[in-house]
Amino acid sequence: MKEEVTVQAPGSVSNLGSGFDVLGFALGAPYDVLTLRRTDTPGVRLINDSPFDLPGDPEKNVSGVVLLAALQRAGAAHGFELRVEKRIKPGSGIGSSAASAAGAAVAANELLGNIFSKEDLLDLAMEGEALASGSRHADNVAPCIYGGVTLVRSLDPVDIIALPPADLFVTIVHPQIEVSTAYARSILPKELPMRSAVRQWGNLGALVAGFYRNDPELIGRSMEDVVAEPYRKALIPGFEAVRTASRQAGALGGGISGSGPSLFQFSRTEATAEAIAAAMRDVYTGLGIEHRTYVTTIDPRGVRVMC
Amino acid sequence: MKEEVTVQAPGSVSNLGSGFDVLGFALGAPYDVLTLRRTDTPGVRLINDSPFDLPGDPEKNVSGVVLLAALQRAGAAHGFELRVEKRIKPGSGIGSSAASAAGAAVAANELLGNIFSKEDLLDLAMEGEALASGSRHADNVAPCIYGGVTLVRSLDPVDIIALPPADLFVTIVHPQIEVSTAYARSILPKELPMRSAVRQWGNLGALVAGFYRNDPELIGRSMEDVVAEPYRKALIPGFEAVRTASRQAGALGGGISGSGPSLFQFSRTEATAEAIAAAMRDVYTGLGIEHRTYVTTIDPRGVRVMC
Repeated sequence: MKEEVTVQAPGSVSNLGSGFDVLGFALGAPYDVLTLRRTDTPGVRLINDSPFDLPGDPEKNVSGVVLLAALQRAGAAHGFELRVEKRIKPGSGIGSSAASAAGAAVAANELLGNIFSKEDLLDLAMEGEALASGSRHADNVAPCIYGGVTLVRSLDPVDIIALPPADLFVTIVHPQIEVSTAYARSILPKELPMRSAVRQWGNLGALVAGFYRNDPELIGRSMEDVVAEPYRKALIPGFEAVRTASRQAGALGGGISGSGPSLFQFSRTEATAEAIAAAMRDVYTGLGIEHRTYVTTIDPRGVRVMC
Repeated sequence: MKEEVTVQAPGSVSNLGSGFDVLGFALGAPYDVLTLRRTDTPGVRLINDSPFDLPGDPEKNVSGVVLLAALQRAGAAHGFELRVEKRIKPGSGIGSSAASAAGAAVAANELLGNIFSKEDLLDLAMEGEALASGSRHADNVAPCIYGGVTLVRSLDPVDIIALPPADLFVTIVHPQIEVSTAYARSILPKELPMRSAVRQWGNLGALVAGFYRNDPELIGRSMEDVVAEPYRKALIPGFEAVRTASRQAGALGGGISGSGPSLFQFSRTEATAEAIAAAMRDVYTGLGIEHRTYVTTIDPRGVRVMC
């Protein structure tokens, strides 16, 4: 059995337009790098090799709780030491906690002799998400574990459908503002008008069809979100300006990544994706808000075992 | 140009489980037979060659209003005579009015030199649906026009996605009771809990994926409808007994066809589909309710021009 493993754990976009709470996809960039080593001492030790503060107590750390759960389920007598090089900023809305959770689950499985199925890994990773957000949810960890685009049909029992990753470029802008996930959830209505719900699932069905057809136009026009975006866009300064500028630059469609503040847009070519990034930067430069952009693709693999 | 044309217009199942108001599919059987003839006299004359009463006034007849609209849009100086051999019983919940409407639209187009696009035909056929139910809706006429399984993403603008018809057998039972479409609609709540809505579109997305994958199991388990069925099943005596007996006979999943009273179930083989039909007949024989069953497949063609 291996003594040490390094994994790359990608960021992810969830709440994909009309796919609120069920769809997500893995990003080619950014990603975290996690190096896990077996130790003779039981328990988990964390080494933070990141520019961000992370909880040092394994019971309070997203990767930590996943590793502890993995050791326990495996009935292992040994322990783990994890070195985290976090590159996905916490609170960015592009799946920072999911990368920590899914990366830890996959790394642990490598050192435990691949005893866990994908469903087990998802279950383990949701332990991390529960710590991060207070609720077990899979819309970000599912694409990290399964790769590409995933649909969470059900969590009880776990039923994840991996959709074909379309040939799309993705542009993301992360304006450096804080949006509390809990607050972003609290402002959503508890009830939906039937008409809005039907419109949302008509779009969601078309979006799933768009991925199977690899049809960028269909994907773009099916991104319409009448459920969460109307409420959440007010939390993100520049939202409408980014949308308008992105469309003018050739974007197919996009929305809020997770509960924000990052925004994403799809496009057909890298040149268009770069033009969208430039347009996004112009908006936030104009607003005087620090920001970062990424131009990437949908990552078909999810967490990658490097060595 | 042709002087006369005969078309077969299939029945259809709408509100396909989780696809409430957006999904539908065309049936191999039953179907109506419509024969349309050009006449020198303007206007529309109807000949009812059916065992059912149908309005004789073209302005009050589903096929009639479609033919009148087609003539008007074409700017035609001539008229039409339509002979209707209706085999799909009105009020059965398997798209009787949609067959009348879509059949008339396709037949008219044949005699007008194929001037209408599929979107035009859908639009014409919705005139018939509006007469039948008081609202323009496409979930039954779309599969009649496009064939196979269709998703209505949007009606404004018209955006219909044709999904691959899966290799499934379909069993339908039509208990001879009356369910008013208007009443079946009135008992649905105007608002949905967010949790139910998310569950519905998770299932709907998985159902669309199931058709692309041609995955009977995935289609079956994604049929779950938490939106309409919980309310409407009370209108259909024998609903739970039919479901239980169908499952025992090997059904993959199913639900209410349209707003009922017909019920449908999917299965993998014709033998299973026949066993399900026998189980359905047992239920309604036991209840003393007249009924009719059909064993068929998803029809990939929609309205067929015969000669």
